[in-house]
Amino acid sequence: MDRIRTGVWLVGARGNVATTAVTGARGIAHGTADTTGMVSARDPCARLPLVSVDSLVFAGHDIAERPMPSTAADLTEAGIVDRETFETVQEDLETVDGRVRAGTTRNTGSAASLADGDTLDDEGVTASELVERISTDYTAFLDGEDLDRLVVVNLASSEPPIADPERYDTLDAFERAVEEDDPDLPASSLYAYAALRDGHPYVNFTPSTGSDLGGLRELAARENVPHAGRDAKTGETLLKTALGPMFAGRNLRVLSWDGFNILGNDDGLVLDDDANKAGKLASKGDVLSTILGDEMHNRVRIDYTPSLGDWKTAWDHVHFEGFLGTEMTLQFTWQGADSSLAAPLVLDLVRLVAYADEAGEGGVQTHLASFFKEPMDVAEHDLSRQFAALESYVEAHHEASAVTDGGDASAGAGGSESADVGTGEESDQ
Amino acid sequence: MDRIRTGVWLVGARGNVATTAVTGARGIAHGTADTTGMVSARDPCARLPLVSVDSLVFAGHDIAERPMPSTAADLTEAGIVDRETFETVQEDLETVDGRVRAGTTRNTGSAASLADGDTLDDEGVTASELVERISTDYTAFLDGEDLDRLVVVNLASSEPPIADPERYDTLDAFERAVEEDDPDLPASSLYAYAALRDGHPYVNFTPSTGSDLGGLRELAARENVPHAGRDAKTGETLLKTALGPMFAGRNLRVLSWDGFNILGNDDGLVLDDDANKAGKLASKGDVLSTILGDEMHNRVRIDYTPSLGDWKTAWDHVHFEGFLGTEMTLQFTWQGADSSLAAPLVLDLVRLVAYADEAGEGGVQTHLASFFKEPMDVAEHDLSRQFAALESYVEAHHEASAVTDGGDASAGAGGSESADVGTGEESDQ
Amino acid sequence: MDRIRTGVWLVGARGNVATTAVTGARGIAHGTADTTGMVSARDPCARLPLVSVDSLVFAGHDIAERPMPSTAADLTEAGIVDRETFETVQEDLETVDGRVRAGTTRNTGSAASLADGDTLDDEGVTASELVERISTDYTAFLDGEDLDRLVVVNLASSEPPIADPERYDTLDAFERAVEEDDPDLPASSLYAYAALRDGHPYVNFTPSTGSDLGGLRELAARENVPHAGRDAKTGETLLKTALGPMFAGRNLRVLSWDGFNILGNDDGLVLDDDANKAGKLASKGDVLSTILGDEMHNRVRIDYTPSLGDWKTAWDHVHFEGFLGTEMTLQFTWQGADSSLAAPLVLDLVRLVAYADEAGEGGVQTHLASFFKEPMDVAEHDLSRQFAALESYVEAHHEASAVTDGGDASAGAGGSESADVGTGEESDQ
Amino acid sequence: MDRIRTGVWLVGARGNVATTAVTGARGIAHGTADTTGMVSARDPCARLPLVSVDSLVFAGHDIAERPMPSTAADLTEAGIVDRETFETVQEDLETVDGRVRAGTTRNTGSAASLADGDTLDDEGVTASELVERISTDYTAFLDGEDLDRLVVVNLASSEPPIADPERYDTLDAFERAVEEDDPDLPASSLYAYAALRDGHPYVNFTPSTGSDLGGLRELAARENVPHAGRDAKTGETLLKTALGPMFAGRNLRVLSWDGFNILGNDDGLVLDDDANKAGKLASKGDVLSTILGDEMHNRVRIDYTPSLGDWKTAWDHVHFEGFLGTEMTLQFTWQGADSSLAAPLVLDLVRLVAYADEAGEGGVQTHLASFFKEPMDVAEHDLSRQFAALESYVEAHHEASAVTDGGDASAGAGGSESADVGTGEESDQ
Repeated sequence: MDRIRTGVWLVGARGNVATTAVTGARGIAHGTADTTGMVSARDPCARLPLVSVDSLVFAGHDIAERPMPSTAADLTEAGIVDRETFETVQEDLETVDGRVRAGTTRNTGSAASLADGDTLDDEGVTASELVERISTDYTAFLDGEDLDRLVVVNLASSEPPIADPERYDTLDAFERAVEEDDPDLPASSLYAYAALRDGHPYVNFTPSTGSDLGGLRELAARENVPHAGRDAKTGETLLKTALGPMFAGRNLRVLSWDGFNILGNDDGLVLDDDANKAGKLASKGDVLSTILGDEMHNRVRIDYTPSLGDWKTAWDHVHFEGFLGTEMTLQFTWQGADSSLAAPLVLDLVRLVAYADEAGEGGVQTHLASFFKEPMDVAEHDLSRQFAALESYVEAHHEASAVTDGGDASAGAGGSESADVGTGEESDQ
Repeated sequence: MDRIRTGVWLVGARGNVATTAVTGARGIAHGTADTTGMVSARDPCARLPLVSVDSLVFAGHDIAERPMPSTAADLTEAGIVDRETFETVQEDLETVDGRVRAGTTRNTGSAASLADGDTLDDEGVTASELVERISTDYTAFLDGEDLDRLVVVNLASSEPPIADPERYDTLDAFERAVEEDDPDLPASSLYAYAALRDGHPYVNFTPSTGSDLGGLRELAARENVPHAGRDAKTGETLLKTALGPMFAGRNLRVLSWDGFNILGNDDGLVLDDDANKAGKLASKGDVLSTILGDEMHNRVRIDYTPSLGDWKTAWDHVHFEGFLGTEMTLQFTWQGADSSLAAPLVLDLVRLVAYADEAGEGGVQTHLASFFKEPMDVAEHDLSRQFAALESYVEAHHEASAVTDGGDASAGAGGSESADVGTGEESDQ
Repeated sequence: MDRIRTGVWLVGARGNVATTAVTGARGIAHGTADTTGMVSARDPCARLPLVSVDSLVFAGHDIAERPMPSTAADLTEAGIVDRETFETVQEDLETVDGRVRAGTTRNTGSAASLADGDTLDDEGVTASELVERISTDYTAFLDGEDLDRLVVVNLASSEPPIADPERYDTLDAFERAVEEDDPDLPASSLYAYAALRDGHPYVNFTPSTGSDLGGLRELAARENVPHAGRDAKTGETLLKTALGPMFAGRNLRVLSWDGFNILGNDDGLVLDDDANKAGKLASKGDVLSTILGDEMHNRVRIDYTPSLGDWKTAWDHVHFEGFLGTEMTLQFTWQGADSSLAAPLVLDLVRLVAYADEAGEGGVQTHLASFFKEPMDVAEHDLSRQFAALESYVEAHHEASAVTDGGDASAGAGGSESADVGTGEESDQ
Repeated sequence: MDRIRTGVWLVGARGNVATTAVTGARGIAHGTADTTGMVSARDPCARLPLVSVDSLVFAGHDIAERPMPSTAADLTEAGIVDRETFETVQEDLETVDGRVRAGTTRNTGSAASLADGDTLDDEGVTASELVERISTDYTAFLDGEDLDRLVVVNLASSEPPIADPERYDTLDAFERAVEEDDPDLPASSLYAYAALRDGHPYVNFTPSTGSDLGGLRELAARENVPHAGRDAKTGETLLKTALGPMFAGRNLRVLSWDGFNILGNDDGLVLDDDANKAGKLASKGDVLSTILGDEMHNRVRIDYTPSLGDWKTAWDHVHFEGFLGTEMTLQFTWQGADSSLAAPLVLDLVRLVAYADEAGEGGVQTHLASFFKEPMDVAEHDLSRQFAALESYVEAHHEASAVTDGGDASAGAGGSESADVGTGEESDQ
């Protein structure tokens, strides 16, 4: 599979998560970084013949002008990117940044305020023209770099949620809206539409709408393109889905679960706007009521504290009742670096949807639910059951591939758990 | 099954956990308490036709003189037992306390200092005489209360671990040791031996040795008696087995996990003795290295802080590394009431081993691993996988019973999830 | 001084704090409670000949119907009032509750929704009529109970802050507003006006406006009546004023201080309304910028979590910079019972303003700054310097009284530190 | 005063704290670092004409071979020293490291295991010979660098406490012990003796014995040399002395105060040895009982967690009782970088004892109590009262100097609060 050249198109390429993902991938290629934090680098996924990390070729859209090396410099200062890797991948970052194209700010709410660079939003540009420009960017990269496959990943700032998403429940309705330049169509869905229509696998890493519309599901199914989303589960919510089932399994009654998040990066700034925050809060809040029921008092707050930079601290206070009405509490504080937690998952998802595409498995990739706060088409939020679903998928494919190939797939590049994930030919970036 | 009268013999009957278990069971019988905190009262276990909680008949051994109603009064003062229940079950507690017989302090380390009442430890008494006295107590209760089955539960204070347990690896060796009055045999194993030999299911709720010896495993298998243990997983360790798999599943490298526990009850006092603490620490520490590997720095401390009474607070500090070497932390504080967390599990385990006994399933009950810090014969410490094993067991039995009985087993008393767990005939206590 | 009968008029008499204060005072009188938590019961205040706690006679206003004994029953259930005291003071609470008169909801914002009892707010009632009715209530109690002095304490729910308080900067302006039935006059200032005008010492325990207007300051000075406020410092803010000076003294640069409070009582409910919360947040926020400067990011949130009842949990996250730019954090969680923390301070303040009144010291009592989040006429927020000011006051008076009386004042009732604070004749309530 | 050249002799010069102090001082000199964290750089001390930081000349003893630049490189990697400063001061560090002389390991317990370099401990060397060698090193530096004054600071790893310190209660007894090569004399006291005897001011930054012996007090008084100590108060204990008085002032009864410290540097390693830890625990524990009384349960633990490096995390759990017996808790976690917190205090103490020496004020410097966990000759542990004592000292001296000099002392170099602390002539290092 490593002969197949895979491109990764990052919407929001100059942001912290994208920059960290590219930095990490190139650091792995150069041998200064390892795969800690990558789910696909350990059992069970490591058993699959996934595309090697070091062969990935990156490009993307952005609305900000600040180049990736500058973002990486800040992340190095903040202790998130290690200095050796930063220095080693300088040129690679410049190369990738040179491939970044102007994006659109349509319906991105306060995120639009980050647009200090060129955008696609010329006066009077229509939705349908935006789609064509985006599509052209995808194709130019594919052709220019002689790639066999392109995976599009949405890493742009959270958009405000859209009203009445069901109006786009059919592909027909969605395409009509594009045609008629419906002013409510959000940027994330235009990027997703262009990707799925052109046959590029798509991952929505954010709480924005992306491909999570009936019409786009229909398109992905028709074109047999894999897609997955939405809102990567990296910190506080990850913990909730690990701890919630413990309370449920022990029949302990959670009375209230209050979560307070403070963070200081652009994400925090954008989320300081109530409209943009709404989508994020919805996906963070839902996971608990699914596991623990609706009567529980459930609050999530996200606040912007500039001094924290890319660091996020969450404090959760869980008040619960046990036998004989005894009231107890669990509190936790989680101090994480968002980009460091998110970036490896970007690489995981790229590798896993590329694998699905190779295997001819289009539509929503439900076995990837453990990666998301609001997994499309999956009601299960229990982290360990989500992990089990991923394991079952791998087992089924590993077995199949063993039977078909008459050999152990894990012998392929990047396959075995102990092997370096980047044993393939190195790309030129 | 409810026609079958089930007795529960509590070793350490006057302690907090036992008193809370009896208070709760009787509170459920009288309708002042509910089943919050009982695993067996919710799905999946609720699908099995378990013995109803209100029909259980209690008795036990102890070395302390302080009667159960006094212990219950303290727990009520501390906010662990609710006042209405306390008042309602007064007479029941007195009845049960009237059935408590003197226990033995043999090799219980500093726990022996709690012995202010009569004990079986007459000058010159031999191990084999102790076994006979214990056996006689079991039988007298069984006969006196006209019971069909007796489940023995070890709830006594933690003993120091014994040296070279493998010397008791065969039943022969164990029985010879009893015969020769081997001075190293601990109390918990004498109680377990008497139980298993006489065909009574046995549960070891503590880190003490109990039935966790090759010789006693052999006995349980030969006699086809179910047993389970050891060291109930109620607080900090429960959390570890819920959170550890999250780090593992996400390939995050835990560098150190420090856990500090402070508590103020008799358990804390006994554990203040280093010898007695050793067993506890061993079982608490092991779970993490199984899940996260051995290189991690792993510390557990348990300290006695009298002012906390039956409340236990644990602070855990987890230092981990993510992508690109970024170091992050998770900290939690758990403020729990030990007795309230433990007591419902006592009732769960009694119901579940009684069920296994009725089903003719002797030996170690590995499907009960989720209840223990150091589950006998089970290497899996991931809480959710342990829950899954319990669910599989229930599914297999529920199906079987549906086939056999030509009906839905959950129609039985205490079976369905919504049903009260105590719909059977009430016992006389 | 104990021959002097002192009455305490509690505005908001049926609330948690008032009920706890009365319960505690009567518990002290009956010997079931002690003075833990009372600043006036220890050095330095204990050196002053303060009125004895057990001689205080209580009454008050409220807009809620629920009688004090019912409130006390809830507090007992929640573990805040101890059961023995609750049972002992039943009759006393009924007596005091019988003296509670209907209050006004004028400009109390969402707090008015708690008014399920009678109020003074008859259709068309004017501000000036309200003042007279309030005044009549004060006088009737004074006369009816044969009291020598009445201290009025505002314990009602937080009002929204008023706009342009400077318009009431002179007594003239204030009295004209009362005369003209100015619709913006808040209830708290009407109670305060009636008190000061009639010569009753006044304490504002809440963030509401109360006597903190130029006009009322002028009145208090003219009438030589002591008053103090506002917003008692009981929990998170108390900690801030203890910790803030540590950072300042060590020249550590605080970058951000985020405080999140969750609580579940009526206070929380009223504060869930943004207007009512505004005043509270203002007084909580200010203390830090005074101590640590304005550049620091400073956030306070208060949220309503019903399951917590009268318990309040605060999590504070302090991000600071030390030598060579090293960034560090301090986090704390404070789990306090608001009523238990506040009630003893009510008794302290009553005793201390009564003492000032006896000494002929009218106007703002600046030496009481340590009791308040927003001490009137005091810019110093450093807790220890505020304590030092109280100590200086006591030293000056103690010495003076020693000189005047030709003896040690602490020999008086309630005076010496070890003496019971209630050694005076017991009142009849 | 800046014409006076001040040398600083660091015992333990290659350790983290010393290296950070030198790095910071030289960073200030070169303009890459500022004075955040230095008490002497802000009011009140900034009013005194202290020696400028950039004029200090450093040297010292050590038993480890690893040079200061390597230690600084590690601290930079750990995010404690900023990179720009690290690079700027490289040469200075090399210069200082070149002046480091071999030290002694006599009675340093497990700290001796750090000795991988030369030491003074030749076979058969006597205490009196050690003193002469140390003295020779001091003098050589003083002469070699043409210094007017030398301040000796003990920054070496904690020694085990000595038994019966009162046997050295007189100078006579101490000197006789030196003469007779008493095998119990600890290294720290030999360094202190040599310093005081030769007239060099001495600061004991550690819990080791140092100058805290009757005999050495006598010597310092006779020679009129200022000295101060012991055990700098940088983290958890600092917090205790800020929070303890809050509980006391509010008459809240602290039932238990448990403090758990985890750290990963050499200090942690040395303290992992129970003997060496004993002194540290003693000084940490005492502060609270002085403030809060002896009945309180008071525990301090220090544990070694290698992954934390120079970072120290403390978790403190305070269980307290308020009015009506209500039990509440305060918990805090402090995540600090020890070297960053300690290093600026080293510079502060050097400047302040040098000032005292210039002013002719020998003996224990009690106004420096706020810097120490166990301040010599001071019983007061309340941080704010200790700060107040420092302020009084400054006020007295500032006034005096204003009177004497006929001008404002703060006009001197480094004097005014806003002025750079390093405006004097720069030293040559």
